[in-house]
Amino acid sequence: MIEVYSWATPNGHKVHIMLEECGLPYRVIPVDIGSGAQFSSDFLAISPNNKIPAIVDPIGPDGQPISLFESGAILLYLAGKRGQFLPADTRGRYEVLQWLMFQMGGVGPMLGQAHHFRIYAPEKIPYAIERYSNEARRLYGVINKRLGQSTYIAGKQYSIADIAIFPWLRSWKNQGVELKDYPHLKGWFDEIASRPAVQRGLDVLSAERKPLMDEKAREVLFGATQYKRH
Amino acid sequence: MIEVYSWATPNGHKVHIMLEECGLPYRVIPVDIGSGAQFSSDFLAISPNNKIPAIVDPIGPDGQPISLFESGAILLYLAGKRGQFLPADTRGRYEVLQWLMFQMGGVGPMLGQAHHFRIYAPEKIPYAIERYSNEARRLYGVINKRLGQSTYIAGKQYSIADIAIFPWLRSWKNQGVELKDYPHLKGWFDEIASRPAVQRGLDVLSAERKPLMDEKAREVLFGATQYKRH
Ligand SMILES: N[C@@H](CCC(=O)N[C@@H](CS)C(=O)NCC(=O)O)C(=O)O
Ligand SMILES: N[C@@H](CCC(=O)N[C@@H](CS)C(=O)NCC(=O)O)C(=O)O
Repeated sequence: MIEVYSWATPNGHKVHIMLEECGLPYRVIPVDIGSGAQFSSDFLAISPNNKIPAIVDPIGPDGQPISLFESGAILLYLAGKRGQFLPADTRGRYEVLQWLMFQMGGVGPMLGQAHHFRIYAPEKIPYAIERYSNEARRLYGVINKRLGQSTYIAGKQYSIADIAIFPWLRSWKNQGVELKDYPHLKGWFDEIASRPAVQRGLDVLSAERKPLMDEKAREVLFGATQYKRH
Repeated sequence: MIEVYSWATPNGHKVHIMLEECGLPYRVIPVDIGSGAQFSSDFLAISPNNKIPAIVDPIGPDGQPISLFESGAILLYLAGKRGQFLPADTRGRYEVLQWLMFQMGGVGPMLGQAHHFRIYAPEKIPYAIERYSNEARRLYGVINKRLGQSTYIAGKQYSIADIAIFPWLRSWKNQGVELKDYPHLKGWFDEIASRPAVQRGLDVLSAERKPLMDEKAREVLFGATQYKRH
């Protein structure tokens, strides 16, 4: 059975949703990133960048176990394993790939910075709050425009690009965005949110995650040089 | 001939280096992102996220023209077209893919924020400077540790994962990093920097890029809501 090292955050949700969509059996191993579990040597051996999600598939492409980190790589791996949520034709695959990369390189990191400066940072810094709230609105604008022309983000079919983007947009309130300002995006969002596999994916580990960030978690995630040194 | 819409920045360099490494003929179309050229409707039609690089290949996988944005997708496309710098075996491909995603989701966006707050932002904000300088050192640490165990970032072979990471590490001074603190990384860096194809790739468009950021460029890239609205 596939082992998923994860936590109930947007990058974790992507993989949980994909596994549910594919109907693949899996076992979740919680990695409490607020308490520093991502810096244990066992976890670093499979995820050297000390981040969730990571997976271990006991039966990799060559029959041997394989481990993978980075949610975008994991989504492509699972799509390849199942032949699902990634078009079979080469053109369609690259269409998905470019929007998946857009999520990995833009939507994820930049909305993550918006969360940081709007919610978690110990000081409120107007310049940074404005910078990342503007960038959030720009990204929502790009997605909204695209979804005005295309049923799903990468074309006619629901794909891993939608699965990658969706979990990040659930926190629109924390990003200084109003979902109703982006009608095409909102229609797509509501449809995806109503998928049973998506709902099951979002439930994974949701009870384990503490709702508020405590001092320890803040130190581990944003400050602690003793953890951050490799 | 492949058309490359680009500029002499790290994400542009990746594609220029890859084309040089592959010996593929190409034509560069400069997109001066400091003067707002990325917001023209012609460019947005191929790069809806208003960012370089983007390519148009007149002969795509099905013989029809194809356009692509996102440097990570472009690298995978060119590697697929040439059968170079991406292993043929599935396990090796996923190894490259995870480190490519690490570049796309971490190295690029976070070192970009370090550049922003250390060099370009109109105010010096200690919290943000420290946040992204710490993250830069963490990322260099991850890469250095990996390169202590592996000749190249994704294994024994030079791959698109190395091509993606290298251009970002050239600006270590602007990231608050000392290259000599990371000896494995430095050895790998020097070797890649000495490759003739890499040097040719770094030259592309280098004369066009203005060395200093002027007020106009600052407004276009970091402020201008009239540009940033879609
Ligand atoms: N590019 C990575 C990002 C993963 C990531 O940022 N994970 C966060 C949680 S959403 C994490 O594990 N943070 C812990 C840390 O940075 O120490 C991916 O897509 O997998
Ligand atoms: N994830 C994208 C990032 C591309 C990117 O950030 N490009 C910058 C130059 S390095 C750009 O075009 N900026 C112009 C703008 O944001 O308006 C990729 O890897 O291609």
